[in-house]
Parts: sequence; structure tokens; C-alpha cells
Amino acid sequence: MPQQRSEETRARILDAAVRRFAISGYNAASVDVICSDAGVSKGAFYHHFPTKQAVFVALLEGWLNTIDAAIAAMRKPTVPETFVQMTEVLPAIFAAADERLPMFLEFMLQASRNEAIWQATIAPYRHYREHFAGLIRDGIAEGSLKEVDPEAAAEVILSLAVGLFLQGVLDPQGADWQNIARQSMQILMNGLAK
Amino acid sequence: MPQQRSEETRARILDAAVRRFAISGYNAASVDVICSDAGVSKGAFYHHFPTKQAVFVALLEGWLNTIDAAIAAMRKPTVPETFVQMTEVLPAIFAAADERLPMFLEFMLQASRNEAIWQATIAPYRHYREHFAGLIRDGIAEGSLKEVDPEAAAEVILSLAVGLFLQGVLDPQGADWQNIARQSMQILMNGLAK
Repeated sequence: MPQQRSEETRARILDAAVRRFAISGYNAASVDVICSDAGVSKGAFYHHFPTKQAVFVALLEGWLNTIDAAIAAMRKPTVPETFVQMTEVLPAIFAAADERLPMFLEFMLQASRNEAIWQATIAPYRHYREHFAGLIRDGIAEGSLKEVDPEAAAEVILSLAVGLFLQGVLDPQGADWQNIARQSMQILMNGLAK
Repeated sequence: MPQQRSEETRARILDAAVRRFAISGYNAASVDVICSDAGVSKGAFYHHFPTKQAVFVALLEGWLNTIDAAIAAMRKPTVPETFVQMTEVLPAIFAAADERLPMFLEFMLQASRNEAIWQATIAPYRHYREHFAGLIRDGIAEGSLKEVDPEAAAEVILSLAVGLFLQGVLDPQGADWQNIARQSMQILMNGLAK
């Protein structure tokens, strides 16, 4: 089954890259070393990824797809309940982020120096801002939320999520982040609910 | 005036370091190069800073002291007004952070691999969490805020600030961050106010 073998090769490259980026950093991790770690040829690597940067973007997208799927499963009867329910997904996000944190930080660092990486880094922020703004519009339409500016309200929720995420990965023992996330979202929804 | 000359030397080292860290990254920036950029001897460098890491921590602390002073000047008659007023400090924070962003990201990256740097990195989060929790307690005492959990409410505000900051420095043209910060804080205060 060549298709299945090809998928396995791609997954092995991604696994090796995430570990290597964490150990050596993005710049120092060469395609040669990633291939050696993954046990694949350079030909196989370049069959799947045109550049090392493409591996980086694929890892970011894979992580975001996991979050999207988890969030999509969170829909509750009302929008405020949906947002509070979303905080339940935090432990899974943290677990997935833990080994990837050095990589994401390095990605942002590269982003501050490189236009293409910068675009890939800010895309998810815009994606979630749009997604949350859509939910806020639904909440206003269903009568559960005040007639706030959906973009501004989405930005509050996104900033809260980003801030909790960053602190949670930097300082996992510093607080009960799951509990803080739930309470935080509840306070926010109190301010937004009709 | 040796005292004044000494202060100038210290400032020149810090200026050279912030530029060099931004250009080459923290790891690649050697004490030799920083001394050469600053036009000071290595003896003078080590008179002021035991290690390159100490320079890093001094830069972080200098930036935080600027924010502290700006925040302290923001006190208004009530706590909710004080928090909304604080968002006015954002443009100044962004301006100061702009050239330092690569350095902070690298600092977090180092932090994920080094215990001492990690402590210096999370200290400001805890500092602001305490500061905001104190303000929330004042607000509850003065009767302007609901009897919420001060630590949780402080965490919401801190997360919002961290999230806005991170997005603002990564994507300065992506939104009117000052306006979003003001609206965000207003929504939050609506949820917290009595």
C-alpha cells in the first residue's frame, strides 16, 4: 500500500522535526539531521516538503486542526454556554503544546525577521478572531448576548485565550489554569450576556 | 564625575545589547561584540554585569519598571475606571516592545530550556497578577466591583493584557489595538462591576 507508506513517511518526518526543533532550535536543525532521525531519505523528505519551513508550517497547521476539531465538538444550546464549554479543551491544547512550545517561540522569533513566516504565524490569530466573531453574531441573533461589536468581543476572547495559553505553557505549575480559564470565561460572558 | 560616567557606561552596554540581541539573537550575541558595539572594555562590562544573562534580566526589568511607572500614574476615582484608563498606556508599551520583541521571544525560548531564565521570565506575570488582584480587592472594598475571586479576576485582566500585547507586537497593522484594548477592558469591567 504505497499511499499508506507515504502517509507514514510524512508522519515520521513531522515527528522527527518537532523533536529536533525542540532540541536544537529551528535554525540549527538541518534537513539532513531530521531525515536521519526519521530514518527517511532526503528524496523522500523533498517529496513531501519543498523546504524545512514547509515542515514548520505543517506542524503549526496540524496543531491548529486539532484545536479546531476539539472546538467544533463543543457546541452547546447557547453561545455563552458554548464559550464556557470551550475552556474544557485547554488541557488537551496544553498537552499538545508542551513539547512544541520551544518550536512556537522560535517560529515567532523567525516571524519577527521573515515576512513569509510572519504571515503563517498571524494567520491563526485572524482565523480564530473570525470564528469567535461569528459565534458572537450567533449569540446576538439568538438573543443571549448584548448587541456588542462582534469583532471587539471576539478580540477579548482571543486575547484571553492567547494570554492563558502563553502563561499556561510558560508556568504550568503557577496556577490551576483549567479552573482559571473557566472562571475567566464566565466573568467575560457575564459582561457580554443580555 | 565617575558616578555619572559609570551610569553612562551601563546604559551604553544595555543599548548595544538590545540591538545586538535583536540582530543576532541572544545565543549568537557575544559579550565581545556587545562591548565592541558599546565602545566599552570587557573589564567595564564585567564591572556592571556578571554575565550576559544579567544584561538580559536588566533589560527585562528596565522595561517592566517603565510599565509600572506608567500604570501607577493611571489611578482614577474608581477601580473600574482605573483599569479602563490603563489601556491608554498600551501605545507606549508597544513602542518600547517593538525593538525588543525578538529579544523577549528569544528570552522565552531560553526560558523553556533554562531554569534561571525561566524564573526571570515568569516573575513579571506573577508581579502583575498580584498588582491587579490588589486593585480588584480595592474595587470590592469600595463597592464598585462584585465579590468575585480577586485572583481569578486578576488573571482574566492579565491574560487579556498578555494576549493583546502579543498580537499587537506580532501584527501591529492587524487592528486598532488601542481601541480594541479599551473596548475589551470595558466589556470585562461590565462583567465585574456591581
